[in-house]
Amino acid sequence: MLKEIPLKQIQISDDFWSFYINTIKEKTIPYQYSVLDNSPYVNIENENKKDYFEKDKSNALENFRVAAGISDGGHYGMIFQDSDVYKWLEAVAYSLQVNPDRKLQAVADEVVNLISAAQTDDGYINTYFQVKEPRLKYRMLYSGHELYCMGHLLEALVAYYETTQNTAALNIAQKVVNHIDSVFGYEENKIHGSDGHPEIELGLIKFYELTKDEKALKLAEFFLDIRGKNTEFYKEEMARNEKDGLPIKMIKVPHLETYLVAHKQPKDMTEAVGHAVRMLYLAASMARIVHHNSDSEMYVACKAIWDNIVHKKMYITGGVGSTTDGEAFTGDYDLPNDIMYCETCASIALAYFAYDMFKIQPDTEYIDVIERTLYNGILSGASLDGIHFFYVNPLEVHGNINDSNPDHGHVKRVRPQWYSCACCPPNFARTIGSVQRYIYTIDEENKTVYLNLFAKSRLKYGDIDIIQDTDFPGSNSIHYTVSSNSPYILKIRIPYWCSNVKITVDGETFDNVKNNCYFEIGKEWNNSRIAITFDTHVMAVKANSKVIADANRLAVQYGPFVYCAEQIDNEHPLSRYRVSNDDIRSAVIAVENCDIGTVPFIKIDTTVESSEENSLYTYNPQIEYTTAKLKMLPYYTWANRGSDDMMVWLHQK
Amino acid sequence: MLKEIPLKQIQISDDFWSFYINTIKEKTIPYQYSVLDNSPYVNIENENKKDYFEKDKSNALENFRVAAGISDGGHYGMIFQDSDVYKWLEAVAYSLQVNPDRKLQAVADEVVNLISAAQTDDGYINTYFQVKEPRLKYRMLYSGHELYCMGHLLEALVAYYETTQNTAALNIAQKVVNHIDSVFGYEENKIHGSDGHPEIELGLIKFYELTKDEKALKLAEFFLDIRGKNTEFYKEEMARNEKDGLPIKMIKVPHLETYLVAHKQPKDMTEAVGHAVRMLYLAASMARIVHHNSDSEMYVACKAIWDNIVHKKMYITGGVGSTTDGEAFTGDYDLPNDIMYCETCASIALAYFAYDMFKIQPDTEYIDVIERTLYNGILSGASLDGIHFFYVNPLEVHGNINDSNPDHGHVKRVRPQWYSCACCPPNFARTIGSVQRYIYTIDEENKTVYLNLFAKSRLKYGDIDIIQDTDFPGSNSIHYTVSSNSPYILKIRIPYWCSNVKITVDGETFDNVKNNCYFEIGKEWNNSRIAITFDTHVMAVKANSKVIADANRLAVQYGPFVYCAEQIDNEHPLSRYRVSNDDIRSAVIAVENCDIGTVPFIKIDTTVESSEENSLYTYNPQIEYTTAKLKMLPYYTWANRGSDDMMVWLHQK
Repeated sequence: MLKEIPLKQIQISDDFWSFYINTIKEKTIPYQYSVLDNSPYVNIENENKKDYFEKDKSNALENFRVAAGISDGGHYGMIFQDSDVYKWLEAVAYSLQVNPDRKLQAVADEVVNLISAAQTDDGYINTYFQVKEPRLKYRMLYSGHELYCMGHLLEALVAYYETTQNTAALNIAQKVVNHIDSVFGYEENKIHGSDGHPEIELGLIKFYELTKDEKALKLAEFFLDIRGKNTEFYKEEMARNEKDGLPIKMIKVPHLETYLVAHKQPKDMTEAVGHAVRMLYLAASMARIVHHNSDSEMYVACKAIWDNIVHKKMYITGGVGSTTDGEAFTGDYDLPNDIMYCETCASIALAYFAYDMFKIQPDTEYIDVIERTLYNGILSGASLDGIHFFYVNPLEVHGNINDSNPDHGHVKRVRPQWYSCACCPPNFARTIGSVQRYIYTIDEENKTVYLNLFAKSRLKYGDIDIIQDTDFPGSNSIHYTVSSNSPYILKIRIPYWCSNVKITVDGETFDNVKNNCYFEIGKEWNNSRIAITFDTHVMAVKANSKVIADANRLAVQYGPFVYCAEQIDNEHPLSRYRVSNDDIRSAVIAVENCDIGTVPFIKIDTTVESSEENSLYTYNPQIEYTTAKLKMLPYYTWANRGSDDMMVWLHQK
Repeated sequence: MLKEIPLKQIQISDDFWSFYINTIKEKTIPYQYSVLDNSPYVNIENENKKDYFEKDKSNALENFRVAAGISDGGHYGMIFQDSDVYKWLEAVAYSLQVNPDRKLQAVADEVVNLISAAQTDDGYINTYFQVKEPRLKYRMLYSGHELYCMGHLLEALVAYYETTQNTAALNIAQKVVNHIDSVFGYEENKIHGSDGHPEIELGLIKFYELTKDEKALKLAEFFLDIRGKNTEFYKEEMARNEKDGLPIKMIKVPHLETYLVAHKQPKDMTEAVGHAVRMLYLAASMARIVHHNSDSEMYVACKAIWDNIVHKKMYITGGVGSTTDGEAFTGDYDLPNDIMYCETCASIALAYFAYDMFKIQPDTEYIDVIERTLYNGILSGASLDGIHFFYVNPLEVHGNINDSNPDHGHVKRVRPQWYSCACCPPNFARTIGSVQRYIYTIDEENKTVYLNLFAKSRLKYGDIDIIQDTDFPGSNSIHYTVSSNSPYILKIRIPYWCSNVKITVDGETFDNVKNNCYFEIGKEWNNSRIAITFDTHVMAVKANSKVIADANRLAVQYGPFVYCAEQIDNEHPLSRYRVSNDDIRSAVIAVENCDIGTVPFIKIDTTVESSEENSLYTYNPQIEYTTAKLKMLPYYTWANRGSDDMMVWLHQK
């Protein structure tokens, strides 16, 4: 079984990711704290067109103060508002691990103390239920999110403890685990259900990994077993509340169990259904528990869900979730580009799931998906200034449609400062802020290091030291300097998007190295040098013909970057361009400085439909085409220059 | 000003429309009566994915019996369930006018008597409010539909009286008008508002046209003037109900006034917005009142709305309403093919609006739209068996998407037997059942007859007698035999979709007659003969480049018929075909007998993308094409052979 390497043992010094890691430290984390603490300068938007969530302020920290008895007032915000603080704290933990900062740590310590003060003696903590609805504690697992929040709390506390050895953090976590153990389980006097939103499972497994407290692992297994065992569980809860005259507090969804991904037991699942983030947090915990219990039935389910997603339900950007209705997966090959959901959190969860699958069976396909999400669908979740965020990441927008058609009401063209449902912004911070974890993975048992991603960085772990020197993605040459006290196998991922790969290991040259696999070298390393060079070309991408939305269209990718066309860079309306496979493959990279920094644009000599019609319909038209240049930029940088039309999938000639 | 010719003065004997008129008489009318009278053999569906309307039965007739005190029980169904009966009665009136039937008339007379029995002494009639919510009478014009229902009642009674001289019908109508006059108007003690759903205006104008009761015309003018004068009117009504502890009973819509098309006064309107049927019933009444008061300000508004629709918001099928959210118009050129609404009723209302515009200013553009709706978007509203109905008329469906993506939940692929909201089925019956009205129009003042549509028929009106002999749409030759006692001008519409038009009038031949206009002949007619021949070719249609949904696509039209491809007729998935302008123009008509009768299929020698990919995305693909035949059939006949994929707009080569 492979293991993640602690962040502090991977120093990153590249331009690409370091920009984000520094932005998150310098801007995102302080900004998000100010939002959570009710900065008056923040304009909060609803994440979809339904305009009925409270959005005057976040109040997330104040909710804890109220629960702790420090402040007066009520609870404000979503039922899961606490989790915004927890994800922020987790982001801080990762930032501190690689960039110690006493001031920031002091702020975070205070937050830990505040959480501790709010936690009740029995270990329970959820400010919504403590302050606003004590009657409903654990009576509405279908939408209460109590365990969901505690799962994020455990993840945050484990990370924070690992970084800072803050014992208060560990104590809170232990109390939470003991508390959950006292309330949930197979025993007759305990609740035989799991949270409507998976997440506690991941928190419990991580707590187990830190403390080896078997109780936590057993609880995670319990939640993964009890889910979907009684498919009527949530409806019975609702009926009980109704009978007792208590409010229901659940949005209308057509198939409740499927929406909650509790339509069957996880081990029996064969495809991705329901709410995408729920599905993928669940899948990630299913894969992660296999690390510990080697449950082969569960692994088969994980693999089936994985295959279903990556072969039938994943956007080229690594986005998932084809509908806003239930923020959900739909059918195989149903990938609309303009009214989809593609929530930032869902791509994040897909990366988590992928990494836990990789650690079970280290195939490049998992890193391919991690890379796809990181460089595209997750990164597009934030603006380059680090303080504006997308919830929904479309692959095509047209201003006049978005402004006038309510079916597109959830698709924004400018990243807002914050959301009433603010799950994505701190999720972005914790994920991209710890992106180093994906560069290297270790298999201690087999003395193997997996070198997954190209990025200037240094790994020092145990007796191995790898210095990776490269300007990637700005260059196609990578140099490793490797030392170890014992023989080690290095497995270097040669991505699917490069060609003509040449590798030299201490003077010995390998030509025409196969791509789309790991290149393996096992030896004793003594300041040994590995050099890799490869070619990259602009690539045309075709979707499977079963994808109706992409029929007669092509996308453009360069290296790991999916490209898009924005109207601001182009003379003609984007829907008028007609590109061919050859046009794209002949395209050139043109690095330019512009408002958003140095951008490797792609310029394509292609064709534009130039007919000018006045009427709505023309009969037996003379369709005219003229040559034109189409300029594209990496998808993750879109919408950083105002509100604009954008297309990923271009019309084919 | 032009005038409609009473139906009984137009005898139709063609194959095409007579089939429908007979089907409506023999099947649709009896079937719909049985539904309205709670036949146990009917399976009722909701018209959209929201599954919360009562749909065990129609109960529409029983509601009247309850209101009349003949039956016990409550009200069942929609707030506007009464209108289903009224539209059915109107359909019966038109059917009886051309095909007298004592038995059917007796049934209809009974319905009139039932309505009369339910009407209160003061003239009010609405079974929902009488039986279920007397407290809310005229207190919720925003969604109460009382005047909407009475509008349909007036239309039905006027038609029924014109056909049968049933004085009970006229009495009910007069009582309704007197009643409305006593409640609504500018006077201080009257209500200063109009119905949230326009329709009463049309009913009142038609009553005025029959009776010359000025009160009715004034009332219609009042409703068209008061609408949108106080844009807060409906919100004030809601506030009043809330204050008085009464239920609100209104669906959530983002912009109430726009949804209700009461965002401004009709005379100030410049574009089509809001709920499509509301907008178009309103527009039809605006145009129709101009017939009587020549209000030039109102006419300018009508023309602006018209131009906005036909140049920017109308589907090639004559469908309108681009979103299910509010069943509404959206922005200019926003015409999605797969998640639109295109309600049958909206196309019907567009035809009504078009005809009233035509009668003000007889241009071919109005008849073009009437023809477009009749032969396509309206006709698709019913199955060929006459007893299954579409509410939503999509231009593209794919089974796997429709079944799995809730954003397509309102789009059905098989016509249901009935709907919980059953506006469309009887609207279809009354509209197609009186289709003759569009064939000829008279301008008595200028002694002119407009010959708008080709169909074997005979007009006898006043001193003119026109026999139109043709097998159109099965043939391209038309013969008229015309007699009149005085000089008459005939204006024969030469459609935009024909060419090489040759006209012979009493031996004198006109070659290369211009199409897309009226061909005018003024003379004395004495058993005179006019012969017309023309060519028709399969035409490729291109949408304006601003229509994002149709970019890089072509549609196919033959004569007035828009064509579509159904999967059942084709070997490859429809989204794989790639057609060119030339492919389409070289296509042939192949008349075949199949399950649904004799169908003029179109066969196109074209190309299909034959690449077979296993993966979701292919890089630098070899895209392969092979020749293939694509078979298409008239759009109106789709979905008569089970549930299938269908496309109108084909991918362009």
